[in-house]
Amino acid sequence: MVIVMQPGVKAEQIQQIAARLEEVGLGVHLSEGKFRTIIGAIGDEKLVRQMSLEALPFVEKVLPITQPFKLVSREFQQENSVFKVGDCTIGDKQVVLMAGPCAVESEEQLLQAAAGVKAAGAQILRGGAFKPRTSPYAFQGLEEKGLELLAKVREKTGLPIVTEVMDQHTVGLVAEYADILQVGARNMQNFHLLRELGKLEKPILLKRGMSATIEEWLMAAEYIVSSGNPQVILCERGIRTFESSTRNTLDLSAVPVVKHLSHLPVIVDPSHGTGSWRWVPSMSRAAVAAGADGVMIEVHPQPAQALCDGAQSLTIDKFTALVTELRQVAAVFGKYITEEQA
Amino acid sequence: MVIVMQPGVKAEQIQQIAARLEEVGLGVHLSEGKFRTIIGAIGDEKLVRQMSLEALPFVEKVLPITQPFKLVSREFQQENSVFKVGDCTIGDKQVVLMAGPCAVESEEQLLQAAAGVKAAGAQILRGGAFKPRTSPYAFQGLEEKGLELLAKVREKTGLPIVTEVMDQHTVGLVAEYADILQVGARNMQNFHLLRELGKLEKPILLKRGMSATIEEWLMAAEYIVSSGNPQVILCERGIRTFESSTRNTLDLSAVPVVKHLSHLPVIVDPSHGTGSWRWVPSMSRAAVAAGADGVMIEVHPQPAQALCDGAQSLTIDKFTALVTELRQVAAVFGKYITEEQA
Amino acid sequence: MVIVMQPGVKAEQIQQIAARLEEVGLGVHLSEGKFRTIIGAIGDEKLVRQMSLEALPFVEKVLPITQPFKLVSREFQQENSVFKVGDCTIGDKQVVLMAGPCAVESEEQLLQAAAGVKAAGAQILRGGAFKPRTSPYAFQGLEEKGLELLAKVREKTGLPIVTEVMDQHTVGLVAEYADILQVGARNMQNFHLLRELGKLEKPILLKRGMSATIEEWLMAAEYIVSSGNPQVILCERGIRTFESSTRNTLDLSAVPVVKHLSHLPVIVDPSHGTGSWRWVPSMSRAAVAAGADGVMIEVHPQPAQALCDGAQSLTIDKFTALVTELRQVAAVFGKYITEEQA
Amino acid sequence: MVIVMQPGVKAEQIQQIAARLEEVGLGVHLSEGKFRTIIGAIGDEKLVRQMSLEALPFVEKVLPITQPFKLVSREFQQENSVFKVGDCTIGDKQVVLMAGPCAVESEEQLLQAAAGVKAAGAQILRGGAFKPRTSPYAFQGLEEKGLELLAKVREKTGLPIVTEVMDQHTVGLVAEYADILQVGARNMQNFHLLRELGKLEKPILLKRGMSATIEEWLMAAEYIVSSGNPQVILCERGIRTFESSTRNTLDLSAVPVVKHLSHLPVIVDPSHGTGSWRWVPSMSRAAVAAGADGVMIEVHPQPAQALCDGAQSLTIDKFTALVTELRQVAAVFGKYITEEQA
Repeated sequence: MVIVMQPGVKAEQIQQIAARLEEVGLGVHLSEGKFRTIIGAIGDEKLVRQMSLEALPFVEKVLPITQPFKLVSREFQQENSVFKVGDCTIGDKQVVLMAGPCAVESEEQLLQAAAGVKAAGAQILRGGAFKPRTSPYAFQGLEEKGLELLAKVREKTGLPIVTEVMDQHTVGLVAEYADILQVGARNMQNFHLLRELGKLEKPILLKRGMSATIEEWLMAAEYIVSSGNPQVILCERGIRTFESSTRNTLDLSAVPVVKHLSHLPVIVDPSHGTGSWRWVPSMSRAAVAAGADGVMIEVHPQPAQALCDGAQSLTIDKFTALVTELRQVAAVFGKYITEEQA
Repeated sequence: MVIVMQPGVKAEQIQQIAARLEEVGLGVHLSEGKFRTIIGAIGDEKLVRQMSLEALPFVEKVLPITQPFKLVSREFQQENSVFKVGDCTIGDKQVVLMAGPCAVESEEQLLQAAAGVKAAGAQILRGGAFKPRTSPYAFQGLEEKGLELLAKVREKTGLPIVTEVMDQHTVGLVAEYADILQVGARNMQNFHLLRELGKLEKPILLKRGMSATIEEWLMAAEYIVSSGNPQVILCERGIRTFESSTRNTLDLSAVPVVKHLSHLPVIVDPSHGTGSWRWVPSMSRAAVAAGADGVMIEVHPQPAQALCDGAQSLTIDKFTALVTELRQVAAVFGKYITEEQA
Repeated sequence: MVIVMQPGVKAEQIQQIAARLEEVGLGVHLSEGKFRTIIGAIGDEKLVRQMSLEALPFVEKVLPITQPFKLVSREFQQENSVFKVGDCTIGDKQVVLMAGPCAVESEEQLLQAAAGVKAAGAQILRGGAFKPRTSPYAFQGLEEKGLELLAKVREKTGLPIVTEVMDQHTVGLVAEYADILQVGARNMQNFHLLRELGKLEKPILLKRGMSATIEEWLMAAEYIVSSGNPQVILCERGIRTFESSTRNTLDLSAVPVVKHLSHLPVIVDPSHGTGSWRWVPSMSRAAVAAGADGVMIEVHPQPAQALCDGAQSLTIDKFTALVTELRQVAAVFGKYITEEQA
Repeated sequence: MVIVMQPGVKAEQIQQIAARLEEVGLGVHLSEGKFRTIIGAIGDEKLVRQMSLEALPFVEKVLPITQPFKLVSREFQQENSVFKVGDCTIGDKQVVLMAGPCAVESEEQLLQAAAGVKAAGAQILRGGAFKPRTSPYAFQGLEEKGLELLAKVREKTGLPIVTEVMDQHTVGLVAEYADILQVGARNMQNFHLLRELGKLEKPILLKRGMSATIEEWLMAAEYIVSSGNPQVILCERGIRTFESSTRNTLDLSAVPVVKHLSHLPVIVDPSHGTGSWRWVPSMSRAAVAAGADGVMIEVHPQPAQALCDGAQSLTIDKFTALVTELRQVAAVFGKYITEEQA
């Protein structure tokens, strides 16, 4: 940390801060410039973060030097984390396709979607059983019944499933069924939930909060990893900005930034990221070209009949055409999407 | 709802939509303009929201006409909602002052803060027992021990307490102690938590999410009210923007907008809203002048020793001086802040 | 500046940077921490800003210690800048009211508005002759004819006038007529225009850009002041955020922040800041309570007939009622609004 | 337009609006719903936009049905606009590479950069002679001298040049030298400049403003086109958001959205869009995959010595490697980047 003092700071005020730093074992490095005196605190920055030095009127600001996350950082682990789910590996050369309906609505709908996305080349089936909805009057998901249908369809198609867990209560229940547990954007800083997921031995798909900085997102991942579960897959799904022609603004630059700062895999959800089926194909291609480890795409047999987010769902035909393109884009970068097993 | 069709839409496509609207009992009102054909759906907009009409390629957009919230709307209830907490009324002529430390740290600290803010004129004591922290390595609150201290200090000072509840698990526990249960910004769309709070008979202080629109915020309140608890107090606490000289951007225009759209009381938290003690007094004064029903201010006996958010805490002296000003601002608008009982 | 090196930086890389700093006369202060090596550059930060050190792969980041603005900073000049316009002083105890129509439409409209706002207590008449409009098809202002009408009405009412200048070409023309020249939000970083205005001896009202940080805004003021004109009045007019219930988000915390960082006066425009007449009164009161040196309010004799921005204009009656309140709010803080001279 | 009335609106109020609409020749279509009365105004929406109907207290809101832009819309012209610059075509199957230094610094620097990017496959040379800089103390460009150097290097290399024009004064001067005139983000709504550029017969590269919606950006293009110059190339260069790990947030979804709404070509500037050379390669690849008609990339022979924006400049080597990748990505979508002529 670098502590910048107000102009005109007095010697005893500098001394007061130095004393507090030394008290907790930090080194003190004083530098008197022409315009400002600054104090370098040498050692673990956590210790400085815990002092409220900015509450002192003679302190102008406190500047962090290192990142606040540890276990998820590229500094802590140089090589990429790679997780295995079913037959596929996430975080390596494979570009993983997760696809399926926003919400599980019925066995027929789910099976139709699953068969369609599998035939197109998807490796993982997505589908919501518990749905976080802005309105209390909107369809809230089939809940446990939805989980059962997901399991049934997994059995029939062989596709592992990713589904959302909305609260601590249901972590156990969802974990029984899901191959990957998803944390939605609204829950990215539901810290009790994160800690609970840190006790599992299954991968967690952690969506970025609507207004979360990349640093906060990695800190949320740090909650899970520091609680014991190293299998975190990050998922960019758009951030909130002033632009209203898309539902969110998909921040694809998050992909290289995360890859630089962290060893965790990162995938992209262009469906929520844009909010309209019209923009999903181009943004999926861009995500793969940006270096994402996968994409998560909403696909529905009949989008205009969907109980949830039909406006952003692809038809099976459109998804199938898209996968062909994604396969070629992946190949440019020495990556691959598996072919459907005949 | 108004459904705007793409240019060149065909008669049978219009018919297809009309049929779906009529199927659920909605009226259909067709209007063929020079540039666009639009369909007015007459009746309950919820029914249209549930159709994914924007998934149809010949639909350009769907425009809502009415607000999606009901019970919390000014249309549903013309007169202000007024709640009673201890001796004070929220939502009427009284400007309520909630003050105290960010986190409960010890009995001594809490008692000192409580005595100080009470003497200055505060009516409600705030203090966090469960603390949502960005970092898993930061102080997470005293939890149940913190609740006990709050109760103890309430007994000694007579001040009712407001404290945060972070998850469903602890709703019962927090409700045992708190006079008002606070939902933090990060939990504004933790829908299971909201429903749980809807079963209580105590007021809920619902903070606005960091990137929540006013509409989403009112929808979150609708979750609580529609679950059975009408006592919701809204709290503006700053939104996330590009500006970095303040921690958040305090959106004071939310006060008159909420007052126009809803009958619920709305207070302001300038401490989180700005992130620095330097800006708290002016923003508190502005909040009262904007018509807020109260302010919630972090006060700490020794901010520079605080375990949490010391940088944004006022000293007791600064808070005392501020209350004198707020009292005069309130009086300009025919409102009042109660005097401390001698 | 503090230059933070990547982990694993080599001695010769540190040496390379030190050499460049010393070459331009800066002091070098090396600090090797446990996790990072940092280099303090002692002396004028401008010199470091001009080096592109972040282009070096072994540099992690470069942290500024001081503010980039000089002449407009509170550090450069402790006491408030106070400017005289007509009979009123801006930047001192007087809260200045600038009011009038968005655009000058006709002599009758302008005179009616001017007489009305003067009677209510306004000291300065606003009115646009050159109008920056999002659409090329919208009314673009009466241009020179509008300036003539403003001058005519000034003569009749005695009110000094503030009006917008949109480009360098017309600086001379507008300066002939205006008492204060206004730079609109869209032109805040029109640097050639700013330099041109720096040659005048009239006050410049500099609106904050829609997405300008406070630092950038002060840098824009620095352009004017460093070109020779110290009379800059800053005007907060709302920033762009995701919230759509208001046209912009009025950032009132900019008022205390600017007052802390700079000696220049700062006023608030709640009309553009909110975009609706409904929110103007409460936000005007809040602006005065936050410590603004004045407010600028759109007033139109018949808002629903306005050629521009009628939706955010107050009627003369509403404005008159508002001034009464503002006068009382100002008085709470030892400030005043002059009474109309009988 | 659809005009939504407040609940409880009276017949004479509806009549008042109908009368105003009919007065200007608009059709009136009344629809009385269960919760709201709405009035459809049939005909040219411009006419309604010019009325300030939202100023009326009994009007709740006014909803546009059509887009406010005309000439630049896909509705007006179905097929893509294609412009020819030197040997290349913009807006068709060719992916155009514009590359070069942020600022022209010297003949040697520019020639070295130009030769390097040409060898790598770039078709157009970029370089700033007039530089808009946040600080009045930063290097402001070589101005006319810079233009001369650009012309000299064009002669030597055969590369057409794109360079920024900052104000009306210099439109003539810049137009003498440039093959494409660039409007910077800060000038996107400098309407007088736009009109002036509308009189030229050269392509204009119009950067998106930092906080401009796509609609506003297209309206800025409409200013140029409606003034007589149809050759507008749009350039996405990042928008301002809360995320601070990148300088701006590159909004790649703007590419498909613009392609849907308009017939104009759209390119991407990942250098300003991200602010760091580290993220430029991945974002360039993503831009091409998203369907951009080209990319504009800052390349400097020695970024760490650059007088401007060195932190975001690629070295010639990095750029050369990148072009190889872009060529392959383009090929996936049936597009191409021309090879350097031997």
